[in-house]
Amino acid sequence: MQQIAHAVERVRETAPLVQCITNTVVQQVTANALLACGASPAMLDHEADAAQFARIANGILVNFGTATSHQLLAADAAIAEANALGTPWVLDPVSVGGVDYRTTRIRAAAAQRPTAVRGNASEIAALAGHGAGGRGVDATDEVDAVLPAAVELSRALASGTGVPGSVIAVSGPVDAIVRTRAEGGADVVRVGGGSDLMPLVIGTGCSLGAVAAAYLGAADRTDPDAALWAVAAAHAHFAAAGARAAESAQGPGSFAVAFVDALHALAPEEIAAVPVTAEVRSEERS
Amino acid sequence: MQQIAHAVERVRETAPLVQCITNTVVQQVTANALLACGASPAMLDHEADAAQFARIANGILVNFGTATSHQLLAADAAIAEANALGTPWVLDPVSVGGVDYRTTRIRAAAAQRPTAVRGNASEIAALAGHGAGGRGVDATDEVDAVLPAAVELSRALASGTGVPGSVIAVSGPVDAIVRTRAEGGADVVRVGGGSDLMPLVIGTGCSLGAVAAAYLGAADRTDPDAALWAVAAAHAHFAAAGARAAESAQGPGSFAVAFVDALHALAPEEIAAVPVTAEVRSEERS
Amino acid sequence: MQQIAHAVERVRETAPLVQCITNTVVQQVTANALLACGASPAMLDHEADAAQFARIANGILVNFGTATSHQLLAADAAIAEANALGTPWVLDPVSVGGVDYRTTRIRAAAAQRPTAVRGNASEIAALAGHGAGGRGVDATDEVDAVLPAAVELSRALASGTGVPGSVIAVSGPVDAIVRTRAEGGADVVRVGGGSDLMPLVIGTGCSLGAVAAAYLGAADRTDPDAALWAVAAAHAHFAAAGARAAESAQGPGSFAVAFVDALHALAPEEIAAVPVTAEVRSEERS
Repeated sequence: MQQIAHAVERVRETAPLVQCITNTVVQQVTANALLACGASPAMLDHEADAAQFARIANGILVNFGTATSHQLLAADAAIAEANALGTPWVLDPVSVGGVDYRTTRIRAAAAQRPTAVRGNASEIAALAGHGAGGRGVDATDEVDAVLPAAVELSRALASGTGVPGSVIAVSGPVDAIVRTRAEGGADVVRVGGGSDLMPLVIGTGCSLGAVAAAYLGAADRTDPDAALWAVAAAHAHFAAAGARAAESAQGPGSFAVAFVDALHALAPEEIAAVPVTAEVRSEERS
Repeated sequence: MQQIAHAVERVRETAPLVQCITNTVVQQVTANALLACGASPAMLDHEADAAQFARIANGILVNFGTATSHQLLAADAAIAEANALGTPWVLDPVSVGGVDYRTTRIRAAAAQRPTAVRGNASEIAALAGHGAGGRGVDATDEVDAVLPAAVELSRALASGTGVPGSVIAVSGPVDAIVRTRAEGGADVVRVGGGSDLMPLVIGTGCSLGAVAAAYLGAADRTDPDAALWAVAAAHAHFAAAGARAAESAQGPGSFAVAFVDALHALAPEEIAAVPVTAEVRSEERS
Repeated sequence: MQQIAHAVERVRETAPLVQCITNTVVQQVTANALLACGASPAMLDHEADAAQFARIANGILVNFGTATSHQLLAADAAIAEANALGTPWVLDPVSVGGVDYRTTRIRAAAAQRPTAVRGNASEIAALAGHGAGGRGVDATDEVDAVLPAAVELSRALASGTGVPGSVIAVSGPVDAIVRTRAEGGADVVRVGGGSDLMPLVIGTGCSLGAVAAAYLGAADRTDPDAALWAVAAAHAHFAAAGARAAESAQGPGSFAVAFVDALHALAPEEIAAVPVTAEVRSEERS
């Protein structure tokens, strides 16, 4: 779990600048989560300057939860810059499958091959072409049931054949972070911990996508495993903070406050101490 | 007060999905209030998919506090679906009367006969055609003074003659929830409790409108009194949580945190224990 | 420091109505800060009614952090009304210099001669034509280094020759509030206190701009020094609340909560007790 502690340190040392094109419900909590983790947030989402800002961002989050036409155009432009420069970007497919227009736009973004996708089980299933997607912020499928779809999606979003796939992160009671290998098969990292109060606070999932972009932005791109572990470390950071916050919380209100405190206070070794397992899984059509 | 405890239980058991087309200032606090009450929030407000989502929502909130053109068109479409399907929807006429363009749009929404309207006294007066409306988030009229206007508005928004009117909820130190009866006269339910810190936290009123939509979405539509008591129960839930939060609060910041904790923690019988009175009032032109 | 205590009292007594055309990330925290300080927030930012509302506002904030086209047009209209009526307005040039389109719009707003400008050192430098501006929410220059640029900017935004300049407020570990005098030279007020947790909470800077507009809206316009001291008092209010909040905070989450409590609880004399110094500085080309 050395890789997780190292990833935490890199974020705090380099303060990656994360451009968030995200829904207005969670902008505040997302900015505060990024700041507490040591990253620097910027919410520029107007099509007129999103591309220019993307050129200096270290990581980008795209989330169409309350997408405006400004944001849809801004995301198109920022994604193009990110791909041209090799800047990592994360797609949060919130509410994919629930409504047609948004689903079309989310699928168009996914086709641009995000570095990582983060969602709950039903969202990942819907993006992979299975299941109906989310209703609001709920997850209705289980993480394990969606793993074959996540592996399939990772491979489908790979930038070519014989290369690793995109990182697919499935949030749940135990998170699963999946990435297909160049030589076939997929790494699956599971991150436990957290708290069952997390789904009762809006934005814990959405801000995790932004923090994953921060971790990717701080990662060593010369290390072929860095993307997988960067996303896993972001999940470990949230899981550790959730467990810590739950110790003192009286309910979802005080949990949300203690969670931000914990994001900021936890030492790298405390974050690396959350339950994490890694395995290699064969690929099969789901 | 059995009806209030029962309404609380129904929300927690059925987790109604509430589509909020609301102002960006309060989206986060609204989503957290819905989650804490046991409902499921969704803030879809783009005209391209608002109507489609409205078909699966259990309740809808319309609030033009920072309306964009997206939201204005989204509300038109969602309201049409709600009315076609009989899905309850709540209008929060925040800032009606203060500025012309917004007032025009709020009145156009009101003409679509919302299931309920929730506002402060000056907003209800302005929507009924009396008084000047709000300046910002303040209420300048008193709840009692506006009761005749609320009764008149309830009747005016009824879907026909000889049927009950819309539920009109007036927020204040003691809230009044009003609905005209099919046979004439109006039920008036008053809900006390709460805290004078509530007006110092942005979104306590706006999120109450969303929670009222959740309570309406969970209500038994075969019960002719269910809409009145659903809205009253939402107000009782907020009043009980406000009173509980005030016990430990050091000011508006800690009050807001404790309020969300209390929304989540309060038992149905604790919510039903807030001061509630019901009377029947004759109709008269105000 | 009598002027600071007096300014605090005026805000609490008159509850100035502040129209905020500001970024969606910080709307909630800004509204809560205004309420906690005794002011009344209104976030009307649609071009169709922003001008009309500006006619009744006591102060206006313009901040293009996540500007939509609605907001850009709304700001143009509101600023025109403010200038016609003599209503004070504050420009927060967040992210000026970082991206071209936004910079163009911020410079166009600045050319309308805001009553006050509030930003961090790198933003003030960029607006004055020096330095590159901000990346996200960070300040990369020091307050002292930017003072000549702030003085120059104050003079450049003056409404004519032989009159006082705009108030330029530079946020940092010790804030500097600068205004050129009619007769030449500039007043420089420095406000210490605060907490190093403040930059870790999103919106502490942005909401300070709104609170400065509230203080300006409550100020006695017949007093030629009132604008300078109104802005200084807003900074003292935040600095005192930051210091108070830091005493109990466990991290940025609990700090944000305690900060709002402190904004509300602090007595005028406690606010006036923060470290404040005033000097007169000669003007020189920077």
